[in-house]
Amino acid sequence: MNKFANISLKALLCFAAITAIATSPAFAQDAELGLSKGSVAHAKELRDAAMAGSRAYSIVASLTTEVGPRLAGTDAEARGRDWAVAKLKALGFDGVRVEPFTMQAWARGSESAELVSPYPQPLSLTTLGGSVATPEAGLEADIVVFQTLTDLEAVKPGSLAGKIAFVSHAMQKTQNGSSYGFHGRLRRSGASIAASKGAIAILIRSIGTDSHRMPHTGSMRYDPAIDKIPAAALSNPDADQLERIHARGETMRVRLNLQPRSLGEVESGNVIVDIRGTESPDEVVIIGGHLDSWDLGTGAIDDGAGVAIATAAAKLILDSGKRPKRSIRLILWGAEEAGLLGGYAYLERHRKDLDKQIVGSESDFGAGRIWQLTSQVSPEAQPLVNKIAELLIPIGVAPGSSDAPGAGPDLTPLVKAGMPSLRLHQNGNDYFDLHHTADDTLDKINPHDLDQNVAAFAVFAWLAADSDLRFKAP
Amino acid sequence: MNKFANISLKALLCFAAITAIATSPAFAQDAELGLSKGSVAHAKELRDAAMAGSRAYSIVASLTTEVGPRLAGTDAEARGRDWAVAKLKALGFDGVRVEPFTMQAWARGSESAELVSPYPQPLSLTTLGGSVATPEAGLEADIVVFQTLTDLEAVKPGSLAGKIAFVSHAMQKTQNGSSYGFHGRLRRSGASIAASKGAIAILIRSIGTDSHRMPHTGSMRYDPAIDKIPAAALSNPDADQLERIHARGETMRVRLNLQPRSLGEVESGNVIVDIRGTESPDEVVIIGGHLDSWDLGTGAIDDGAGVAIATAAAKLILDSGKRPKRSIRLILWGAEEAGLLGGYAYLERHRKDLDKQIVGSESDFGAGRIWQLTSQVSPEAQPLVNKIAELLIPIGVAPGSSDAPGAGPDLTPLVKAGMPSLRLHQNGNDYFDLHHTADDTLDKINPHDLDQNVAAFAVFAWLAADSDLRFKAP
Repeated sequence: MNKFANISLKALLCFAAITAIATSPAFAQDAELGLSKGSVAHAKELRDAAMAGSRAYSIVASLTTEVGPRLAGTDAEARGRDWAVAKLKALGFDGVRVEPFTMQAWARGSESAELVSPYPQPLSLTTLGGSVATPEAGLEADIVVFQTLTDLEAVKPGSLAGKIAFVSHAMQKTQNGSSYGFHGRLRRSGASIAASKGAIAILIRSIGTDSHRMPHTGSMRYDPAIDKIPAAALSNPDADQLERIHARGETMRVRLNLQPRSLGEVESGNVIVDIRGTESPDEVVIIGGHLDSWDLGTGAIDDGAGVAIATAAAKLILDSGKRPKRSIRLILWGAEEAGLLGGYAYLERHRKDLDKQIVGSESDFGAGRIWQLTSQVSPEAQPLVNKIAELLIPIGVAPGSSDAPGAGPDLTPLVKAGMPSLRLHQNGNDYFDLHHTADDTLDKINPHDLDQNVAAFAVFAWLAADSDLRFKAP
Repeated sequence: MNKFANISLKALLCFAAITAIATSPAFAQDAELGLSKGSVAHAKELRDAAMAGSRAYSIVASLTTEVGPRLAGTDAEARGRDWAVAKLKALGFDGVRVEPFTMQAWARGSESAELVSPYPQPLSLTTLGGSVATPEAGLEADIVVFQTLTDLEAVKPGSLAGKIAFVSHAMQKTQNGSSYGFHGRLRRSGASIAASKGAIAILIRSIGTDSHRMPHTGSMRYDPAIDKIPAAALSNPDADQLERIHARGETMRVRLNLQPRSLGEVESGNVIVDIRGTESPDEVVIIGGHLDSWDLGTGAIDDGAGVAIATAAAKLILDSGKRPKRSIRLILWGAEEAGLLGGYAYLERHRKDLDKQIVGSESDFGAGRIWQLTSQVSPEAQPLVNKIAELLIPIGVAPGSSDAPGAGPDLTPLVKAGMPSLRLHQNGNDYFDLHHTADDTLDKINPHDLDQNVAAFAVFAWLAADSDLRFKAP
């Protein structure tokens, strides 16, 4: 009997991956990686300490309980910043500061809809972020059903005059969330496309993968050249219901009343703190999550989890006593949901220090375990990234592409401006079940899964900051 | 090697059960069971036909789509009756009729609540059925937290003066739903108990086993000797949130606005049709489900599924060409959720024919598979019940107690009045995840599970009606 007969395919693949790394230059020693002596051993200690239990769950419990929903630009988001400043100070961080910026804010109002005919019944929906209101008394019109956005785009201008467009394209689950970009276009751009055909409002099937009466909100934008029409998302079961009625050959008439309002120009901000480096304190490795959330839930998986993971990782390093060569910068971003406004504000403010933003990674894809690491750094820094990957293999992270720019939403402006990036990909198979719904609450988070995320962020932040390799290709 | 080594424990238990029945008098022939010749073979054909695919799913799809929610006593419930009459006629049933009755009806109005302090945020809740309204402008008060109803009962009268009582007892899952009676008392009676202590309103944790922002409604009643106070149920995640804040030692202040209203005396009704028996047509075997539903969902599992299962079983028998000796009566009950009003109205109307109500079974516990059969019939009819049980063993139904009165909610008045009963118990492990919520929609139903239910009801209805044994003990 072959001695490997009882080894699973999974184990063999894992063995193969370790062998490949073990025989590559990735197993270089501390000095070769630009690290201080004992740095890799310290990273392992940080990892193992996090896996044994981190502060992340208590942090996200605190944020979602003591602040709750944190809509960008509102008093609730400001309470989130106050919470963050107080929490970071209480955790022992020095030099906590807010970098404020201004933004145009939007707030949900009352929202209701009902099928008037042929089968009168209420519909469960929510206004899309940025939508204009209906008339105060609401509006009532027949709906025209489209299976996809492409179908809507194909009809003639004017053909939807006086009608409500309903587009029922159903998003499917993916581990890496890659279907969000494609399906999300319906939410982001559907209103202006429908308006260009004459529609007076648009209803979309929620950009979400659950089957609960939980409509998914999210941001949309208007084409400035086209009339603005109200836009809302139906829950998946409600969209199913309209599809079934449509399949019976019936014309559906809907009454719709959405009363969102603009809050005008208000203040938001990024909350920032550094673990100061010993050799090049002006050079920063960025980790973080975003403080704001949609208003329907309490922003647990989006993105209280990210705030908690990054904060707990920084706290672990803070408490370890050792300090890296470069600074680790924790940024708790503001107004992400309104269009990465914190990310753009940071870029604007730090454009002169762009070369000091060494590398970054944000946690903003829920509370699931990390399953893959991707990156884009210089050839010089690639061995260090390989070392980070090697240390994460035992906790279930598979090395992925080293030619994949991307570090999370709020770092997109910096990455586009040339900052090297690394991404710790969470399993997002169920992320869009909860994303942007009232159901985004603490009970959906598994503390042990958060700990695994903290372990990965601690290893990344420590090793990237403790190395003096150049991350940016010359 | 023992030849039974590869037989699982499950298979052995099943084998033991069959052996026990095979050696008992339950394997009697048609004539011994008071059945017409070939009756048992016909029951098997009905069972197998249902398992191969029944009409049940299309019936519940039709009801939940074309009528939607059907709150007792409202126009929507009346549309449900119209739907039922039209559907039964379309299926080929003759003599479809409505037995009307009057009732005091209640309707939900707007409902909202928010935590005012210490951490301002909206709360997701729903008014309990039968609750009085708050003042038009709402009310605001501190809440007093109780873990259980027993804890609330233990405090002194007057001790809750000016406060809102919050009772957070969490219901746990059970296969047979047996925890509903215990936990449901909080919903049914909590308001008057809280009022007797001086409370001005009561909030309860939903009587439900999910963790979604889906509050569970359901009926409650006031003690006529005690002041009526408004009553609502928080979703489980919201109840968790209040518990977490309470655990931080904070006093919580809540603003509550519930605007339900009484609709006064209105009409409801039971929709009834018989498959007329060949020998004793006045004697009826009753099957059915209830037409009304709560207003939040579309009444798919509660109880469109029961309507569909019983109707599809009757239709299968109708189409088989054979007619039983006694009549099979299909009753689609009205106003179950308002307190079994259809069941009480039927008893009142048919009290003079009580001895003609031979035996009954209602389907009203969701859309899960049947796993157990229990009954209470005369010793004379027990062999027939054993035969029914025997025929259901291959489709996963285990024989249970033969001394268990109970035939489903709407038949309770008849069973209490002495009617023999049989119950086909569905697996209700997940039933209270959806029960009385907005999430009770068609997408939660598995068509194949419905078919298994139809098979069981067809076997029961056929064999019970085709036998001339006495079901009632003399």
